Amino acid sequence: MGRPILKVMITITTIKDMRDYSAEVRRNGKTIGFVPTMGYLHEGHLGLVRESVLTSFRTVASIFVNPAQFGPNEDLDKYPRNTEKDKELLEGVKADVLFFPSVREMYPEGYSTYVTVEGALTDTLCGALRPGHFRGVATVVLKLLNIVDPDRAFFGQKDAQQAIVIKRMAKDLDLRADIRVMPIIRDEDGLAMSSRNVYLSPIERAKATVIYKSLSAAVDLVKKGERSVREIKLAMSAMLEAEGVRTDYIAAVGADDLRPVEKIKGRTLIAVAAWVGSTRLIDNVIVER
Amino acid sequence: MGRPILKVMITITTIKDMRDYSAEVRRNGKTIGFVPTMGYLHEGHLGLVRESVLTSFRTVASIFVNPAQFGPNEDLDKYPRNTEKDKELLEGVKADVLFFPSVREMYPEGYSTYVTVEGALTDTLCGALRPGHFRGVATVVLKLLNIVDPDRAFFGQKDAQQAIVIKRMAKDLDLRADIRVMPIIRDEDGLAMSSRNVYLSPIERAKATVIYKSLSAAVDLVKKGERSVREIKLAMSAMLEAEGVRTDYIAAVGADDLRPVEKIKGRTLIAVAAWVGSTRLIDNVIVER
Repeated sequence: MGRPILKVMITITTIKDMRDYSAEVRRNGKTIGFVPTMGYLHEGHLGLVRESVLTSFRTVASIFVNPAQFGPNEDLDKYPRNTEKDKELLEGVKADVLFFPSVREMYPEGYSTYVTVEGALTDTLCGALRPGHFRGVATVVLKLLNIVDPDRAFFGQKDAQQAIVIKRMAKDLDLRADIRVMPIIRDEDGLAMSSRNVYLSPIERAKATVIYKSLSAAVDLVKKGERSVREIKLAMSAMLEAEGVRTDYIAAVGADDLRPVEKIKGRTLIAVAAWVGSTRLIDNVIVER
Repeated sequence: MGRPILKVMITITTIKDMRDYSAEVRRNGKTIGFVPTMGYLHEGHLGLVRESVLTSFRTVASIFVNPAQFGPNEDLDKYPRNTEKDKELLEGVKADVLFFPSVREMYPEGYSTYVTVEGALTDTLCGALRPGHFRGVATVVLKLLNIVDPDRAFFGQKDAQQAIVIKRMAKDLDLRADIRVMPIIRDEDGLAMSSRNVYLSPIERAKATVIYKSLSAAVDLVKKGERSVREIKLAMSAMLEAEGVRTDYIAAVGADDLRPVEKIKGRTLIAVAAWVGSTRLIDNVIVER
């Protein structure tokens, strides 16, 4: 009597091995779901993995902190990492493969190719404040999709602009993978799950809940019939300022085209990027009328 | 006794149908070779198709005059087209599929995504003179490779810089397809085959042979021991000027990195872009020592 044989997640670190794995799955006519992450996993990520496991024969999650999407003064070097813990979490939700390449593997000497989604989708919101960010995101996601070759890939609505940019890229470049965007996962007090929440001190953690509270207030205003984006933004900024939370933006834009709106009409994305202490957090809701 | 059943090439015009065709071939474990063209086919293209037919179970050729790679003052509108003749030629060399999408199919309303290969590979030679040209080339080739999903794709060495840019992109973006570059096909008098040769009047056609003659002279000089790029370029420009052929550039660059060299050393690409009347022609040789 041996111990029961447990299915154990495998870790792949080279592009070639990852490609071979996926080719073998596809050769057998099976499907692959893919969840790209930068690690330091939370319930938001795990929800994506669970969805992939439910819908796909094999699930690949990747951990890659992508230098190309960080600006020179951003938090690349201190971005939180805990790969051993991440592996346990991924095994817990039954991922089949962790793809965990090095920076050198992804961007070898002489690397020169970048993908840009141009226009309104990237020159607004975070794109306006983080030049080159979405170029880095689009490039690494395209590379990962080409390497993993999934049938579907899962992204979180928390990064609303990222999700729209990736959907646009996938459509424009005729990618095979179906891009699926899953709802925001929140802590009990409403704070959107983010790897960056770990930066918050206990006092900041408490203050940070005002971001979701301000979005909820916006939803309530819309429900009560308020249509003026100006009024809604004033109400939100008053709440955020009262907590000493500085904003990069409070924006109301078309949920699909990200174009600014003055009146709430159709599906509208209300999005906030805010600084709690030295931590930049983003969150959003979609309102409809 | 019916007539013999001939294998007839099929023409596909939609991305969906093309993708379905390729998925079916791959599901059966067979290989696909791909030859992207802008049509008005000549022996250079047909040689690529023959090579694909020899090496692959199915061969797809595409005809798409890609607006994204033409500058505002270039010859997009008058670029030569003759699709019926092209179909006959492709059938003659046993292509299985012609992929022939419309501009609207490839770049629908709202199209926003572009691929750039940055740095030395694109800011020199034709890239310096045709801003955005290689961005257009890289973007359409990536789209076509994603749609056709070939095991290998064939390009001509006549467009030397294009071939290097595409190889770089394919490597950087982890594309599955093997990029194969085939030798230049020339007319009896040495003129490199090009769809643009049709623009030449009989007198211009005779003058145009000086481009290859100047490259041959460069090869002879290198064989005789000349190493100075300055001397080689002087000899070439004297020949070209004697025929009244104006040059965009005469260049000697590393055959792989396209960096300018002063002495012939290792594999060196000697390339010419020249105007014969109002027609711009390019040609090149690789010398080694």
